[in-house]
Amino acid sequence: MSQKKVSIKDIAQQAGVSTALVSYVLNGKEKESRVGQEIALKIRQIARELNYQPSYLAKSLRSGKTQTIGLIIADISNPFFANIARIVEDEAKKIGYTVIIGSSDETADKSRDLIDVFLNRQVDGFIIVSAEASDEQIYYLKDKNVSFVLLDRHFPEIPTDFVSLNNYKAALDAGLHLLENGYKHIGLIAYKSGLFHMKERIRGYRKALEQHNVTFRPEWLIEVGFDTIEQEVKAGINAMLASDAPIDALIFATYRLAISGLKYINELGLKVPDDLAIVSFGQAEAFDLYYCPITYLQQPMDDLGKMAVSVLANKLKHPQEPQKQVLMEAQLIARDSSRRKVPKS
Amino acid sequence: MSQKKVSIKDIAQQAGVSTALVSYVLNGKEKESRVGQEIALKIRQIARELNYQPSYLAKSLRSGKTQTIGLIIADISNPFFANIARIVEDEAKKIGYTVIIGSSDETADKSRDLIDVFLNRQVDGFIIVSAEASDEQIYYLKDKNVSFVLLDRHFPEIPTDFVSLNNYKAALDAGLHLLENGYKHIGLIAYKSGLFHMKERIRGYRKALEQHNVTFRPEWLIEVGFDTIEQEVKAGINAMLASDAPIDALIFATYRLAISGLKYINELGLKVPDDLAIVSFGQAEAFDLYYCPITYLQQPMDDLGKMAVSVLANKLKHPQEPQKQVLMEAQLIARDSSRRKVPKS
Repeated sequence: MSQKKVSIKDIAQQAGVSTALVSYVLNGKEKESRVGQEIALKIRQIARELNYQPSYLAKSLRSGKTQTIGLIIADISNPFFANIARIVEDEAKKIGYTVIIGSSDETADKSRDLIDVFLNRQVDGFIIVSAEASDEQIYYLKDKNVSFVLLDRHFPEIPTDFVSLNNYKAALDAGLHLLENGYKHIGLIAYKSGLFHMKERIRGYRKALEQHNVTFRPEWLIEVGFDTIEQEVKAGINAMLASDAPIDALIFATYRLAISGLKYINELGLKVPDDLAIVSFGQAEAFDLYYCPITYLQQPMDDLGKMAVSVLANKLKHPQEPQKQVLMEAQLIARDSSRRKVPKS
Repeated sequence: MSQKKVSIKDIAQQAGVSTALVSYVLNGKEKESRVGQEIALKIRQIARELNYQPSYLAKSLRSGKTQTIGLIIADISNPFFANIARIVEDEAKKIGYTVIIGSSDETADKSRDLIDVFLNRQVDGFIIVSAEASDEQIYYLKDKNVSFVLLDRHFPEIPTDFVSLNNYKAALDAGLHLLENGYKHIGLIAYKSGLFHMKERIRGYRKALEQHNVTFRPEWLIEVGFDTIEQEVKAGINAMLASDAPIDALIFATYRLAISGLKYINELGLKVPDDLAIVSFGQAEAFDLYYCPITYLQQPMDDLGKMAVSVLANKLKHPQEPQKQVLMEAQLIARDSSRRKVPKS
């Protein structure tokens, strides 16, 4: 079914205003051009009635802009990323951008597909939570002079704009908090990953032990694969508990690992924190509703999302400005799951 | 920075194969054309090295297809929708579609913006979880002969393809389950919404009371606004408990309402289920980890997501086929939060 193409002229005619005015309104610039709200409303309504479809391609050729941001997150089913996507959207909308989202499901292949699809859909720029082994894509975007900001994860060896967490510091804080509360044998469950943020979490954890002169035991550190979380978390916790120096506290490097681990700890009938103290990265309702509220590293999600949008928006306006590399701090929210250790009598 | 446009011919030349073969591979059709995997790999690699960008517009003009689905969900920060988005993506990928996602944040305005943006980005079709008062958009899509499937929510007065839950039956089951387990004064916390699925949940709840000859009390039913969940849930629970016939069981019509309600129930020091039995719609880790695992209505997320993709894919191939309207059943997963009532001594 073909439709007669409606132009700005048609709308202007019907509204009895100039085409320039229609263009202002339909490009969301009525505030700057001081168009009356009533006129703006009328123009929009006529545009809607006439089924007006702006030609993004033509518009893009003229202005070079589509006012669209491509957001690629690592896993939409992870509440951390889903929440940050919502923040990015809200923030982008405030400054007139629409966000289209893709989820790479932690695979570099899918991430590359999405980057291609979004480039061909003429997004102005990208906000990307990188999947493992996707460095090549970052070089590709740099080569093509595409504007982008990395969010939450970055590649220290590739100079880019990024907004991330100081993961080393966060894990160090988690470890020190447990040590200062009297726990000595501290385990860490992390992902087996080449990604920098995960390595930094491990480095911070080990630094905490070192600062308190606790000798690290290899069985205290478990790195599990994405596809075998449940089995590996169980086996890991078993090994940590069967150690000559059984753990009395456990740090989870992500929310998903914590959920999996807490379910198993419940199964084992272990009491938190008396049998095992817990600190986790990530944040979620599950931590609040657990019988013993879980201590967690609160990531500044709002600030991370807003800053990523702001860095990208600025980059789109001023592509020649120096790169912005922002590291934010997590805040440890101490709750019952890591309260001061009571020596067993 | 302008780039010399790379064509399929350039790739074919460098790979020493025909342009047809390159086209097959880059359109993801190597399986059908029995191209060797090695050749396919080589072609993709050369395409990558040359920075080949398929012209989606040109391709679309030829084939009328972009192999892209626009998925509009009601709120990306709600785990139900985030998980269903993941399922839709996985399923779409299997049949060669890329999914681009937008979140309407439960507002009709944002949903309309996203539909426009996606139409202009030439998606082949839509899967839509509708926001309230977005009926007009559905008529608009129908007028334009755009292929779409409504997911999870539909408008009974508009004939469309849809894949939804039988919400009436699910709420009826929840009510009957509690009544059969000895609870009599059952409350429901729902959203104040014109959306059909919410009305159906209320209707099912009331039907359950009616079937057991329990007289409904107005204070047992609370409908809260999206923007005032916390206050209204608290006030609602207070009113339900202060009733002449105080509730002994409570149904939450959504996951978010349950989280808010359970936090307040904890604050009040009420014990689940002895002081108050609970059944909730939605599903989430928080329900598993709660001290008393929460009985919930398990929605067939996998089937909902897969069916939506399958209905849309079929519609894209055979636009003239009759509409498909699928209602799926939720399964009540009975756990401790609604176990048989022990009369207080």
